[in-house]
Amino acid sequence: MSSYAIGIDIGGTNTDMGLVRDDGTIIARRNIATNQYTQLHPYIEDMMSAIRSLMEDNHVEHIEGIGIGAPNGNFYTGCVDNAPNLTIKGVLDFQKEIHQYMDVPVVLSNDANAAAYGELVYGGAKGMRHFIMFTLGTGVGSGIVVDGRLVHGSTGGAGELGHNILIPEGRPCSCGRRGCLETYTSARGIIQTFCELRAATPDYKGSLASVDEKEITSKMIGDAANAGDPIALKTYERTGYLLGIAMANAVTFSAPEAIFLMGGPTRVGEPLLKPLRESFRRHLLNIYEGSCDIRVSQLASNEVAILGAAALIKTKTDSHD
Amino acid sequence: MSSYAIGIDIGGTNTDMGLVRDDGTIIARRNIATNQYTQLHPYIEDMMSAIRSLMEDNHVEHIEGIGIGAPNGNFYTGCVDNAPNLTIKGVLDFQKEIHQYMDVPVVLSNDANAAAYGELVYGGAKGMRHFIMFTLGTGVGSGIVVDGRLVHGSTGGAGELGHNILIPEGRPCSCGRRGCLETYTSARGIIQTFCELRAATPDYKGSLASVDEKEITSKMIGDAANAGDPIALKTYERTGYLLGIAMANAVTFSAPEAIFLMGGPTRVGEPLLKPLRESFRRHLLNIYEGSCDIRVSQLASNEVAILGAAALIKTKTDSHD
Repeated sequence: MSSYAIGIDIGGTNTDMGLVRDDGTIIARRNIATNQYTQLHPYIEDMMSAIRSLMEDNHVEHIEGIGIGAPNGNFYTGCVDNAPNLTIKGVLDFQKEIHQYMDVPVVLSNDANAAAYGELVYGGAKGMRHFIMFTLGTGVGSGIVVDGRLVHGSTGGAGELGHNILIPEGRPCSCGRRGCLETYTSARGIIQTFCELRAATPDYKGSLASVDEKEITSKMIGDAANAGDPIALKTYERTGYLLGIAMANAVTFSAPEAIFLMGGPTRVGEPLLKPLRESFRRHLLNIYEGSCDIRVSQLASNEVAILGAAALIKTKTDSHD
Repeated sequence: MSSYAIGIDIGGTNTDMGLVRDDGTIIARRNIATNQYTQLHPYIEDMMSAIRSLMEDNHVEHIEGIGIGAPNGNFYTGCVDNAPNLTIKGVLDFQKEIHQYMDVPVVLSNDANAAAYGELVYGGAKGMRHFIMFTLGTGVGSGIVVDGRLVHGSTGGAGELGHNILIPEGRPCSCGRRGCLETYTSARGIIQTFCELRAATPDYKGSLASVDEKEITSKMIGDAANAGDPIALKTYERTGYLLGIAMANAVTFSAPEAIFLMGGPTRVGEPLLKPLRESFRRHLLNIYEGSCDIRVSQLASNEVAILGAAALIKTKTDSHD
């Protein structure tokens, strides 16, 4: 008989909920607008009635638990800690609130950790004991699996490789420091690199030659790269070069079997992946040669957040501690 | 009743063996010259008779196991894999060879992993679930403890943070790549920094002004720094600055409770530790503020290798896998 879990992806705008079967199929979804709430209680109330209707409509009487991927989600406490982009402020004890409605395991973590666990339970990392997930988007997140388990660290906040300082005293980062990987390989970082290269190339005549910096998206640069635009291609060469160093550095930590990659900026494909793999190979310490490769996530981009969240429930059942 | 283990530190020149009581006391030691052997069998034979005499002389009938810290020691296979600085060549199956003499657990790992585990079992990391050890010496090694266990990774070769690329395209490293942490913060790296700074300061009149580069040791630079030599002090400022970034980066991986530091170049004390702590504080991502500090190893420098090796035995008894 199949078992089921609920996966919830909390974003600043929307909260997506899905009923997930243990084979990784999302049976049905519901959605509520996160930014309509300023208090936790009514938000949870509406969330729970959506979950109940998901279960009832699909004749599911029992779920293994509720997994939540949320900004600043803390695995240890079950709380969301002062997430800057949520309209509900403060330390939000999701675990306690949900337990007032339903007595099932509730597991919280951040989005990148959830994505990593989704890959482990439902995706291309099945059966792997050691791997790392990099998520490229507005920022750069990561989830690290060591000995088959997510690394949460002493605080619950482990796995922030987007804030590894790659270039000391480099680009200013939103975190207040300089030179973080995120400033070079996030969507914003890619746009900045493109605009820097464009400014340094006065004779550039490509399709993005006169588009205002504020209007440019990483998707536009990706499309231009795939159409052969030289500045766009150079942008991804630079991005892949730096990301390859960061990934080679990550290998010196946990010697993973694979490094997974997902998120909008990766959809450009080869213009990023080719220089990334070349840089990774070149910068990988020789003792790891052949032991680790770079793979694109096998989870669909519109499913990974819910699948990852649902997969977090397995951290409870698999836990050795 | 006390229990005992044997700790063995295999170096290119000497093999140090110690009988270690479970309170972290080294009861007695033996030593054989590693470089007198070119074959594994006679080496193990002499090693085992030294171990037997250690036990007999101290009236110990039973040991928990034999832990070995060795260059290229592989935790998973129990072998030393082609260690370049050993006169006995090839893949050396210590576990299998020792089992022909004594039926006790045999655990191998590299020196830095052993040092980390020594700190966990006998030193300042007692009771910690998450910490990282950096060992500064000819090279820079590291041992990483996550969830109370050493991280070995998929290959057994995890925890090589000395080969994290800190400055892309920076100083050439013995590993064949460029910009590794080791090239800046090992004893050799410190000497190189000193000589670079000295060459750039023609009016330098300090005690090391006319000493040939090949004669300079990191200890000499340390002594000069503690005597107020401005170039030596600047050398450690630069070293501490870079090591602080590397340590802050390591925190983004596993969010440890502490980062430990040991080895010859750390003995200089404040000239290194002050800029190191300042750089660490400045480069630590804000979410980790106050959750991790830098500590000097509590194990005596002449005991850590044997204690660390003996502690490895606990990885077997503590293992959850």
